[in-house]
Amino acid sequence: MPRSEPKQKRNPTPAPREIKLIPIALADDISPGDSLADKLTSSLRRSRRSFDAGDILVVKHKIVSKSEGCLVDLSTIKPSPDSIAWAKKYDLDARVIELALLESRTVIRRKNGVLITETHHGFICANSGVDVSNVNGGRHALLLPKNPDRSAARLHRELKKRTGHALPVIITDSFGRPWREGQTEAAIGIAGMKALRDDRSRRDPHGYKLRVSLEAIADELACAAGLVCGKLNRTPACIVRGFRYEPGRGRTRDLLRPAATDLFR
Amino acid sequence: MPRSEPKQKRNPTPAPREIKLIPIALADDISPGDSLADKLTSSLRRSRRSFDAGDILVVKHKIVSKSEGCLVDLSTIKPSPDSIAWAKKYDLDARVIELALLESRTVIRRKNGVLITETHHGFICANSGVDVSNVNGGRHALLLPKNPDRSAARLHRELKKRTGHALPVIITDSFGRPWREGQTEAAIGIAGMKALRDDRSRRDPHGYKLRVSLEAIADELACAAGLVCGKLNRTPACIVRGFRYEPGRGRTRDLLRPAATDLFR
Repeated sequence: MPRSEPKQKRNPTPAPREIKLIPIALADDISPGDSLADKLTSSLRRSRRSFDAGDILVVKHKIVSKSEGCLVDLSTIKPSPDSIAWAKKYDLDARVIELALLESRTVIRRKNGVLITETHHGFICANSGVDVSNVNGGRHALLLPKNPDRSAARLHRELKKRTGHALPVIITDSFGRPWREGQTEAAIGIAGMKALRDDRSRRDPHGYKLRVSLEAIADELACAAGLVCGKLNRTPACIVRGFRYEPGRGRTRDLLRPAATDLFR
Repeated sequence: MPRSEPKQKRNPTPAPREIKLIPIALADDISPGDSLADKLTSSLRRSRRSFDAGDILVVKHKIVSKSEGCLVDLSTIKPSPDSIAWAKKYDLDARVIELALLESRTVIRRKNGVLITETHHGFICANSGVDVSNVNGGRHALLLPKNPDRSAARLHRELKKRTGHALPVIITDSFGRPWREGQTEAAIGIAGMKALRDDRSRRDPHGYKLRVSLEAIADELACAAGLVCGKLNRTPACIVRGFRYEPGRGRTRDLLRPAATDLFR
């Protein structure tokens, strides 16, 4: 017997709720070995707030990298003649370029003074995410966390111990994009929730089946957090409160398009 | 006399505020000729809310396109043999492919059943933004607004008449991205605020000059709004409240990287 067509559901999604983006400012810099869970919860306490059930924590990778000691003294890097020549041509720091190459799996583009690489994790971004701003005035470079999903999972566990709530954690970095000017925040680590929302088998309010509807929720959360976490204030984290996330074992890899199905590399 | 170096400012940005994302649900569909300003303000009034000074309105382009009558009866489209063959190969609607080509300035990629074009406006996206979901069950296709910045400016003016406030307006669509899975919201029209935040001449709290810091604020606002504006509920708009935007004459063109400086086309 043939299977009957699924019933057309009208408005199957509950009405959306108001979402709050709550900044978490830190009084001081993060040093290697610091517990981010401690720093963030005490910072919240000082502003008379706390984590609630259902909250999502979004943190910039910089404080994660700093707490994990992902710092490189630039004076220890010996750039290749090729890196030196290229950096000179575009008025860049050859040591940073060399470090970016060391942190990369593949060079995707190198042109007009811009180096786009695929990192060991699989992120495609400028300079393998190697960063010298917001570190210590240019002496050290900060790398991305070695395994950002593991970093997110650790923070997730430590927050659960302190708050009793299983709060999803997203770690972010600012990435440029092809075709569009400016950077936006992107998720580079995730724990405690799904990274994507898949509506592809669902129907719109007219009963039309959605073909292309895979929403990069983790990246949208990262961007929303970017609005409260500035580069120039000491606000490297925020709470997203009120968003109905899908709990589950999300991984950053879910957000990375395999080279075989990517039309742009 | 040489100009003195600017003083290193520490923490020049004010502490960030909490941001609220307030959904605006519509009771019914939008028809050609409808006033969006009326529909949105009355919808807010029903939920006992109103626009405040400082609010940003983010709207999905679908309701803008519908109010402007950007609908095409698919039965009027005669696809070329090439479109027919390609659509057949990938189980697609040849009329939608043909319409996407008509709406395009250039084909960027056409492979594996995916058609990436540059639209007449300069957006690079799948199928020139031509959409058949959330329209009327597949008989009509919805196009992007002809001039989304002009649409945003009109809504901005009409809201000012009704509310007394000069509220920035951002119009969005869901775009895929190279390298990353899933779609995120992107700004395709803007009025009343700058699209980008340029921190490139500013210094971090350590006094280090930021080289690469051009933030696509309008796209981050679009993504934040994407969290409350679902595809499957009737919530095509939201208010972003509490964000310190930079007032000014933003244009969508500010977000579009010129082909000459784009490494990926």
